Amino acid sequence: MSPKLTGEILRQLRQAMRNCKYFSEPLQAYIIPSGDAHQSEYIAPCDCRREFASGFNGSAGTAIVTEQHAAMWTDGRYFLQASQQMDNNWTLMKMGLKETPSQEDWLISVLPENSKVGVDPWIIAADQWKNMSKALTSAGHSLVAVQDNLIDVVWTDRPERPSTKLRTLGIDYTGMSWQDKVTALRAKMTERKISWFVATALDEIAWLFNLRGGDIEYNPVFFAYCIVGINTIRLFVDLRRLSDPATRKHLQLDSPSKPELIIQTLPYELVYTELQAICAALGPKDKVWICDKASCALTQVIPKAHRSPIPYTPLCLAKAVKNATEIQGMKMAHIKDAVALCELFAWLEKEIPKGTVTEISAADKAEELRSQQRDFVGLSFPTISSVGPNGAIIHYRPLPETNRTLTLNEVYLIDSGAQYVDGTTDVTRTMHFGTPTAFEKECFTYVLKGHIAVSAAVFPNGTKGHLLDSFARAALWESGLDYLHGTGHGVGCFLNVHEGPCGISYKTFADEPLEAGMIVSDEPGYYEDGSFGIRLENVVLVVPVKPKYNYRNRGSLTFEPLTLVPIQVKMMNTELLTQKERDWVNEYHRKCREAVGTELERQGRKEALEWLIRETQPIV
Amino acid sequence: MSPKLTGEILRQLRQAMRNCKYFSEPLQAYIIPSGDAHQSEYIAPCDCRREFASGFNGSAGTAIVTEQHAAMWTDGRYFLQASQQMDNNWTLMKMGLKETPSQEDWLISVLPENSKVGVDPWIIAADQWKNMSKALTSAGHSLVAVQDNLIDVVWTDRPERPSTKLRTLGIDYTGMSWQDKVTALRAKMTERKISWFVATALDEIAWLFNLRGGDIEYNPVFFAYCIVGINTIRLFVDLRRLSDPATRKHLQLDSPSKPELIIQTLPYELVYTELQAICAALGPKDKVWICDKASCALTQVIPKAHRSPIPYTPLCLAKAVKNATEIQGMKMAHIKDAVALCELFAWLEKEIPKGTVTEISAADKAEELRSQQRDFVGLSFPTISSVGPNGAIIHYRPLPETNRTLTLNEVYLIDSGAQYVDGTTDVTRTMHFGTPTAFEKECFTYVLKGHIAVSAAVFPNGTKGHLLDSFARAALWESGLDYLHGTGHGVGCFLNVHEGPCGISYKTFADEPLEAGMIVSDEPGYYEDGSFGIRLENVVLVVPVKPKYNYRNRGSLTFEPLTLVPIQVKMMNTELLTQKERDWVNEYHRKCREAVGTELERQGRKEALEWLIRETQPIV
Repeated sequence: MSPKLTGEILRQLRQAMRNCKYFSEPLQAYIIPSGDAHQSEYIAPCDCRREFASGFNGSAGTAIVTEQHAAMWTDGRYFLQASQQMDNNWTLMKMGLKETPSQEDWLISVLPENSKVGVDPWIIAADQWKNMSKALTSAGHSLVAVQDNLIDVVWTDRPERPSTKLRTLGIDYTGMSWQDKVTALRAKMTERKISWFVATALDEIAWLFNLRGGDIEYNPVFFAYCIVGINTIRLFVDLRRLSDPATRKHLQLDSPSKPELIIQTLPYELVYTELQAICAALGPKDKVWICDKASCALTQVIPKAHRSPIPYTPLCLAKAVKNATEIQGMKMAHIKDAVALCELFAWLEKEIPKGTVTEISAADKAEELRSQQRDFVGLSFPTISSVGPNGAIIHYRPLPETNRTLTLNEVYLIDSGAQYVDGTTDVTRTMHFGTPTAFEKECFTYVLKGHIAVSAAVFPNGTKGHLLDSFARAALWESGLDYLHGTGHGVGCFLNVHEGPCGISYKTFADEPLEAGMIVSDEPGYYEDGSFGIRLENVVLVVPVKPKYNYRNRGSLTFEPLTLVPIQVKMMNTELLTQKERDWVNEYHRKCREAVGTELERQGRKEALEWLIRETQPIV
Repeated sequence: MSPKLTGEILRQLRQAMRNCKYFSEPLQAYIIPSGDAHQSEYIAPCDCRREFASGFNGSAGTAIVTEQHAAMWTDGRYFLQASQQMDNNWTLMKMGLKETPSQEDWLISVLPENSKVGVDPWIIAADQWKNMSKALTSAGHSLVAVQDNLIDVVWTDRPERPSTKLRTLGIDYTGMSWQDKVTALRAKMTERKISWFVATALDEIAWLFNLRGGDIEYNPVFFAYCIVGINTIRLFVDLRRLSDPATRKHLQLDSPSKPELIIQTLPYELVYTELQAICAALGPKDKVWICDKASCALTQVIPKAHRSPIPYTPLCLAKAVKNATEIQGMKMAHIKDAVALCELFAWLEKEIPKGTVTEISAADKAEELRSQQRDFVGLSFPTISSVGPNGAIIHYRPLPETNRTLTLNEVYLIDSGAQYVDGTTDVTRTMHFGTPTAFEKECFTYVLKGHIAVSAAVFPNGTKGHLLDSFARAALWESGLDYLHGTGHGVGCFLNVHEGPCGISYKTFADEPLEAGMIVSDEPGYYEDGSFGIRLENVVLVVPVKPKYNYRNRGSLTFEPLTLVPIQVKMMNTELLTQKERDWVNEYHRKCREAVGTELERQGRKEALEWLIRETQPIV
């Protein structure tokens, strides 16, 4: 791929930085964060400002432009991709490496004295604003809010904000009505003496109202804000979306059952002034909950004395713990998803020798097969379909100019998933369709050992995910290997494929204790730059388990795999596995055969069924 | 043991809280932290205010007294002990349990509106002050500094502050002169543009000047402060201690070599006014380093604009990474210590059947045997010598009223260590002199598996200790068991047996990456309340290791045990061990036999040598 030429954009941006029409004084630096006004991870095209300015389109990255420099901070997943997508105007700042300065330290080292650093207060989170502002102030500079987004000023053909049709979800999919969710939220508010709650995260709002949209690709959400009081509910959304009778009925807009469950609907843009009005009428003891990752703009509307910032909201936590209906839906979605993948792998086995399958066509085939399954909505993230050296680019996405052909000689890694109305999937398998090298098998086996160590771990109630991260790495570490990403993330139920507040990572922030009903991914990997990539990912459910003893009656937890796709035995060096690990693989494959085999049979997919049965033969 | 009767003390304390002689308004609550003005873990008798007020003498605990309540927060190590030592006036707050409120939340729940909460600013750390003050302020109360310590007001027979003789350490023990340490500190200050550094931790000051004292039992430190500028050194200490010619020569007080290495000596009490004077003369860009755990009183002398608080000081980090001389000394100290323990265990084997050995006499015997070793100074902490149910009290210390006799029927746990001029030791062994039950063996074996998992772990350079903590627990967790304390702490070299900034714990604060030369303990355990306690502790050195691969040239680390005392095979259920674990035990015992056997032979300790040889037979 050739990098985007950004000379002219940067020239215009720097002109805007000097233009006192946008801020009363010239800006010496301008920060372009990754997110939108809801701090979404995936964003709509109209919000891809960092990509517009730099060319780098990974899911994480912050750009800072000064009069002389343009620098991009991103993490290990994107080092290669960012360096390929950006031209020479940009300097890549590799986060996580010792020698890489933080954004604050870098700014302080390059800025002239008493500089003004601008940022759009809607797309910087309140906690980030606070840290950045503190660091800059202590060095004699200041962070300033620029109301007009300066990228939008130079981005003449910026797309419109999407407003897709809303989908209502009944209790058979959600297990709980939106009315009961509001009531549970208010119980938490009352318990903590909170008068108002401002919801800004799109997946939390979608979850609360049992509604889904399609405003952001891969994420079934819709642009909205919501403010819940003890007796009122305000929903801020493009009002044209509420004309559909099914949606009006679902939200009881025309015949509410109880006064405190009346949803007052207001235009999306009015959230700022409405929150101002609410705050103007607050009593001296009134407290307002808002996530500390909400936008700086909205956070600062709430007077400090009334503001009660929280690292994750009660909706975030409630959403993370899936109820029985959601768990059942997730299980069904994963069986359907496994059917599609078994079919894909059986097809690949036949087609690859012909030399006609590429990364892109394999990804397309996977999507086609998934779309044949009931209640399929779309993909849950862009498919990572990567051959040989492309597999070492952790969040690779095949493009025509990078597209490799699948062969019998190289490792193939596919990380993909889908949104079904009953659940969200995310699965990675690494396969070889010829004969893997001893080194490829060795690395695969260490990754498998790590995957099993997490999946089979038994741990006490109340354990945080970061305490399990090293289990995934121990086998790699012992041979001097590692991978530069976390081990797992929370997974939504027909919602975002990445969600908080739980996960499995060496990073310890915003890491809530694991509890039964939470769903996370387990995905260790190994990446040999320029050669191959290995990752092995299941989505797993946290379940109670009863080991031999029960110390202090704390209870224990473990994981149950929801993903049921065979793990290629050909890639394993089974001599490196312990008996326990071999037993785990055999038991896992038995479950795949049982659950997915039954469904393949029901759907009459004979070739895939044969493939499944062959690939799930017990190892000895 | 019978609890201390505290009714009268609390009555007088509450009277003082209401007395406007000490603070301009009545106090509704008074906080009694654990530490001294240097935030030491072990403290001198004159600083044992929390013990005086409550009777509870564990090493960690914070008391809060209100008009109605008296409450004590302590951690899992001390739940039993605290409940036994405190009378009914006190409520025990078990930290780490979900239902236990934080000190802040509890205060907010019990205080009348607009309350004043008092504390002595010298014995509360700046970071604790900040958190407590913020929480109280947000609830309409305030935290106030009370200059006269209110416990001292009611403590009429409070002991004097000690002022023991100083001991100088030459380069053959320290590996680095104090002049070179000061120069290295100044290089770090210059690199970070810091003009002044205020040292308040006693072990850091002792380490910096290669001096030791005996002011605090078990900790070879002396009461002092130190302020280092780019060209000046101020040492605040009882000046009578500096009359000794050896000390004067060591510090070059009478004939300094270079002007910037002149030590200006001032009385201990003058640190406050001297720091005020330094701060009054600061230039606009001058920055002062002080640990964020230093006293609130001293921290607040430094104007906020000039204050640069750090979670750990450059001395703390430099001290943690032992040089070749210190490592050699630590190794020697551990061999001598093992000689004493082999002798002890051989003696116990003979004496226990007679029914005459008690927890106290065994501890005394251990001390006697250690004191026969060269360069012995004293114990490094109170010996935990515990039989049967007493072993379940994690930081038990035998007292005449709890003293049990060692028998052939109960598990014996001894956690002990010593200060030698060349190094500090800390070792725990759990033994059975008759026949252990299957459950005792099972638990011991899980603990052993955890100990080995940490000790043999290979991990990348830059790994923080908290990422290794779960390795120690995995085998226990798998059976539903656990222990409520961290897995390891940093160990000083002829200094405090507990030191920062590294360690191995599920707690993640102030946890600096492990690097070669650091020394930590590895001490998982299991405690069955009312029945027995098991702990297995070695002091281990972080060493570089070369596994098969070297991912991104990061380099790998592992641990080398410094403690070389046999681990009782009789307590193991060897069937639960993997071949790798059995190999580890055999190799460890081979090393014990080699290093300690040679020394036992040299010292002519035949019975202990025979015991060692028998106890280190390989398991098959």
